[in-house]
Amino acid sequence: MKFTVMTLFPEMVLSGLNTSIIGRAVNAGIISIDAVNIRDYTNDKHKHVDDYPYGGGAGMVMMAEPIYLCYKDILDKSSQDGSEKKPRVIYMTPQGKTFNQSMAKELAKEEELIFLCGHYEGVDERVLEEIVTDEVSVGDYVLSGGELPAMVMIDAISRMVPGVLTNEESGMNESFEGNLLEYPQYTRPEEWMGKKVPEVLLSGHHANIEKWRREKQIEKTLKVRPELLSGAELSKKEKDFLEQLKKIK
Amino acid sequence: MKFTVMTLFPEMVLSGLNTSIIGRAVNAGIISIDAVNIRDYTNDKHKHVDDYPYGGGAGMVMMAEPIYLCYKDILDKSSQDGSEKKPRVIYMTPQGKTFNQSMAKELAKEEELIFLCGHYEGVDERVLEEIVTDEVSVGDYVLSGGELPAMVMIDAISRMVPGVLTNEESGMNESFEGNLLEYPQYTRPEEWMGKKVPEVLLSGHHANIEKWRREKQIEKTLKVRPELLSGAELSKKEKDFLEQLKKIK
Repeated sequence: MKFTVMTLFPEMVLSGLNTSIIGRAVNAGIISIDAVNIRDYTNDKHKHVDDYPYGGGAGMVMMAEPIYLCYKDILDKSSQDGSEKKPRVIYMTPQGKTFNQSMAKELAKEEELIFLCGHYEGVDERVLEEIVTDEVSVGDYVLSGGELPAMVMIDAISRMVPGVLTNEESGMNESFEGNLLEYPQYTRPEEWMGKKVPEVLLSGHHANIEKWRREKQIEKTLKVRPELLSGAELSKKEKDFLEQLKKIK
Repeated sequence: MKFTVMTLFPEMVLSGLNTSIIGRAVNAGIISIDAVNIRDYTNDKHKHVDDYPYGGGAGMVMMAEPIYLCYKDILDKSSQDGSEKKPRVIYMTPQGKTFNQSMAKELAKEEELIFLCGHYEGVDERVLEEIVTDEVSVGDYVLSGGELPAMVMIDAISRMVPGVLTNEESGMNESFEGNLLEYPQYTRPEEWMGKKVPEVLLSGHHANIEKWRREKQIEKTLKVRPELLSGAELSKKEKDFLEQLKKIK
């Protein structure tokens, strides 16, 4: 799968995605990540890519033309590589649909994705209309630019591309799948600063471990994200357990 | 304000936060960002920081001790700098409270924040109990580590620290404040690829521009994030406008 990021800060994007699992997938050739500098496409002699907003207001707005030329250049290279389909273009904006794990799964089916990272107050609406297929937000907060959100999306999407995670790692994508948060984890040593690993985890009794972990998931979800519980699949016993917890609370 | 990130990838964190507005604030001494490598605190001769989970299961778990020693070292340095209060320690996890703009505002009041970035399947629960004050998630998706989420939080929080944004830029934080998404932006040229800037924005008639922008905000919010509208403060006329839109829809 191929990711191309249109940005004013290509080095930031590339250096944030060359470590750990994503770096390994790039080195293995399973995914590729390219970052193209929008500033290379301005005809302005001062290399400006922004200008004042029509109608007044704070901040500067990124101009349509450099972004459009940058996009066309990416498409040209992509079609030289034999790609026939126009790739989806994702614009990172607090005004977009909220990104989540099912969107990550869906986007992982694409062969190629292009990300547009804005800066300043925003981007001229006309170029968004012309090239953007998806407006996406990673959460309800305001950031300085689209780079960190694009990196967040590329990380989450890459993990859903076959071959990126080892079998062992695939289990880590299970968060949210059953609408329950994860159980607590413990590793060596058995005792640390007077705190012992819960007895059951040392018992080797798989059914008891499984039961304990499910109960911890239910407890944690009730405490932190109770709204998820309505969508969780619980056994009769687990439902009773949840009712007990709610009474104590 | 001082941010310290406990991570296995300190360079990734630092290079992702040295550009644009955040880089400028660091250079101006308004905020400082430090990243400390947890691996420097392991006593293991192979520099391992993780081990298998008790009770079985996929993946590896980060051990308590290196994280704890790293934390103590940060505290020691911090108290030498004259700080008396123990800083809040934020653990980045999909199991946490969901980060949003009001949390960014609240956290911006702290003098110092420490972030703990996990990797692998998770972190030994005992060290979380010992040092973490806040578990936070940036959204409902799974990432390879806590670094990108920590960078996202540091960006959003820094923007709320007095002096980081210029007066002009402060307007950009208005997203979500009135529970409405933003209006579309246009800049030069007046006509681009046959698309003209909406007439009203060239009119110089401020009341009309304001009315047009508010209506565009309502339209966009209805289209993309209708659940926000219940919390929006609308005038009688704007409520009528919204009802009309809903009928057309």
